[in-house]
Amino acid sequence: MKHARSAFFTPGSDFTIEDVPLSPPGRGEVRIAIGFCGICGTDQHIFHGAMAHRLGDRRVLGHEASGVIQAIGEGVDDFSLGDRVVVRPLSSCGTCPACKAGHTHVCQNLKFLGIDTDGGFSEAWTVPAETVHHLPEGISLKSAALVEPTAVACHDVRRGRVAPGEDVLVIGGGPIGILVAIAAREAGARVTVSEINDSRLALIGKLGFDAINPSRDDVAATMMEKTGGKGADVVFEVSGAQAGLNATTAVAAVRGRIVVVAIYPEAPSIEMFQYFWKELELIGARVYEAEDYDRAIAMIADGKVDAAALITDVHPLDHIGAAFAGLDGSGAAMKTLIEVSGELA
Amino acid sequence: MKHARSAFFTPGSDFTIEDVPLSPPGRGEVRIAIGFCGICGTDQHIFHGAMAHRLGDRRVLGHEASGVIQAIGEGVDDFSLGDRVVVRPLSSCGTCPACKAGHTHVCQNLKFLGIDTDGGFSEAWTVPAETVHHLPEGISLKSAALVEPTAVACHDVRRGRVAPGEDVLVIGGGPIGILVAIAAREAGARVTVSEINDSRLALIGKLGFDAINPSRDDVAATMMEKTGGKGADVVFEVSGAQAGLNATTAVAAVRGRIVVVAIYPEAPSIEMFQYFWKELELIGARVYEAEDYDRAIAMIADGKVDAAALITDVHPLDHIGAAFAGLDGSGAAMKTLIEVSGELA
Repeated sequence: MKHARSAFFTPGSDFTIEDVPLSPPGRGEVRIAIGFCGICGTDQHIFHGAMAHRLGDRRVLGHEASGVIQAIGEGVDDFSLGDRVVVRPLSSCGTCPACKAGHTHVCQNLKFLGIDTDGGFSEAWTVPAETVHHLPEGISLKSAALVEPTAVACHDVRRGRVAPGEDVLVIGGGPIGILVAIAAREAGARVTVSEINDSRLALIGKLGFDAINPSRDDVAATMMEKTGGKGADVVFEVSGAQAGLNATTAVAAVRGRIVVVAIYPEAPSIEMFQYFWKELELIGARVYEAEDYDRAIAMIADGKVDAAALITDVHPLDHIGAAFAGLDGSGAAMKTLIEVSGELA
Repeated sequence: MKHARSAFFTPGSDFTIEDVPLSPPGRGEVRIAIGFCGICGTDQHIFHGAMAHRLGDRRVLGHEASGVIQAIGEGVDDFSLGDRVVVRPLSSCGTCPACKAGHTHVCQNLKFLGIDTDGGFSEAWTVPAETVHHLPEGISLKSAALVEPTAVACHDVRRGRVAPGEDVLVIGGGPIGILVAIAAREAGARVTVSEINDSRLALIGKLGFDAINPSRDDVAATMMEKTGGKGADVVFEVSGAQAGLNATTAVAAVRGRIVVVAIYPEAPSIEMFQYFWKELELIGARVYEAEDYDRAIAMIADGKVDAAALITDVHPLDHIGAAFAGLDGSGAAMKTLIEVSGELA
């Protein structure tokens, strides 16, 4: 293999598929033959015009990738050809105050692989070996494409300090909301999900979670009743809506933690009085750290994440533009994967 | 003494001074002869019409009180007549979920003594013995009137998890802001105060703090320069202004904590994107717990709080209405005390 078919996205335009000549990985790098790569909500925002300044003239997107090691650069000892792997797509500078304090995943000069550099919608992806995690036996490359969003959820749950026996409410039952619910349940919490879309509500029920439909029931009153007047110990705001944010403070217990998972480009209003009155905490969460990847891989390998239920669509690389366009608005689609090379093992 | 002169505030009207017949304290209560009682910002809000629904027809306000034990009810073992004390003016229900979780200071049915019940602008105040703290030798009743606001500051600093060597910014240099700055310095932080009022800036400098005047200098740029591009590890928002709140997210370091000390009756907007981008935390703080009182008493006894600099006015009980009216707008007044009976020891 001397070329890799790659999907280039041109801001303001669409995807084009091209063959890119392969070059050997540099020192400390590995090249991965990509099996599957998921479409992230962020990729969809980029498809619709966001973050164009970070893409250059064109960019290979994709950062939810699984594959096998195809080539190994100098100075890399912990990988062998054919190893099945996933990528933690973060590159930190190592020298800024955040890195020096040990928070490399929120490096002040962080590069996100697949946005700030070319990514995984390509038959071959060359990345720093330090960003690569081994996959255990018994986890398919297809399921492993869920590791990255599952790691987001594990990080959110860790940021929320979810403890066994706590009452958790997840506002918004899309792919990340459901993964947060699963990760919170694995942390020992009693989890309820608030969602308005009927097909998503059906999946939430199938996965064993209590659901509240805020278009029919009062979320705060329902949670207060469920918890004997206490409220939710931890609330995850995954909807990105002002109404969802308003619900967080109404439903939170005294000393409750509110983890804002959705990304708000504008400055929303918050019920600050409730932060005072109930001594609430609002906690920001961004991407993941290595231990979140370890946890996510274990959860998928152990069958805690129902990949068959969550992966609702798989499209070949040639159809990537149609796959992106088809994601708009239905609510029935949960996670859509691009099958770049399929199961390679 | 069979009567206690007391200042009653009638919502929508003013203060009247009346003699109230004394009755013996009930089981578990003590009666305190009040030496001094400070005017809190909350008292001023009430004077201007806030919280009328919590006051009944009329109310003896005042909760920053010091005095000596004058009478002891049944079942109280740990106080003797003449003991010098201060009051932690909180009464919790003991049965709500917050109390059961150990957070009695944010009880879901909390009564605030001096707002929900009669308070300390009276020659005698009867309170539950469990709300009373002993004063050590060497602390005057006048200085001890600062214990309550100092305990607020100690609680804020504890909620912010201020650690030795951290960079702290306090936005707003009024009485609480300065006490927060002092408590943060005692916790080992490097403290800067942002304030626009010149007389307050002079006091901030006299107390040994670096100051930034946001009407002249960019707060975020100044703090970033002072901290080598890191930003403030903990920011205390004490100004109550939207501009102050906006500065919190701009100035905070990655993983910084923002403690909102000011009370916002309206829902302000916050730069939520920065909470995501830098993994910030917003932390609500309300009143204090017993250990905050212990810490505040020790700080005042050890001379860490410059009572002479902070107590800018003392008025007799007969002049309480004029004392409240005189507080409006100058910025030169820091803490005003009502001298109810003076030093009683």
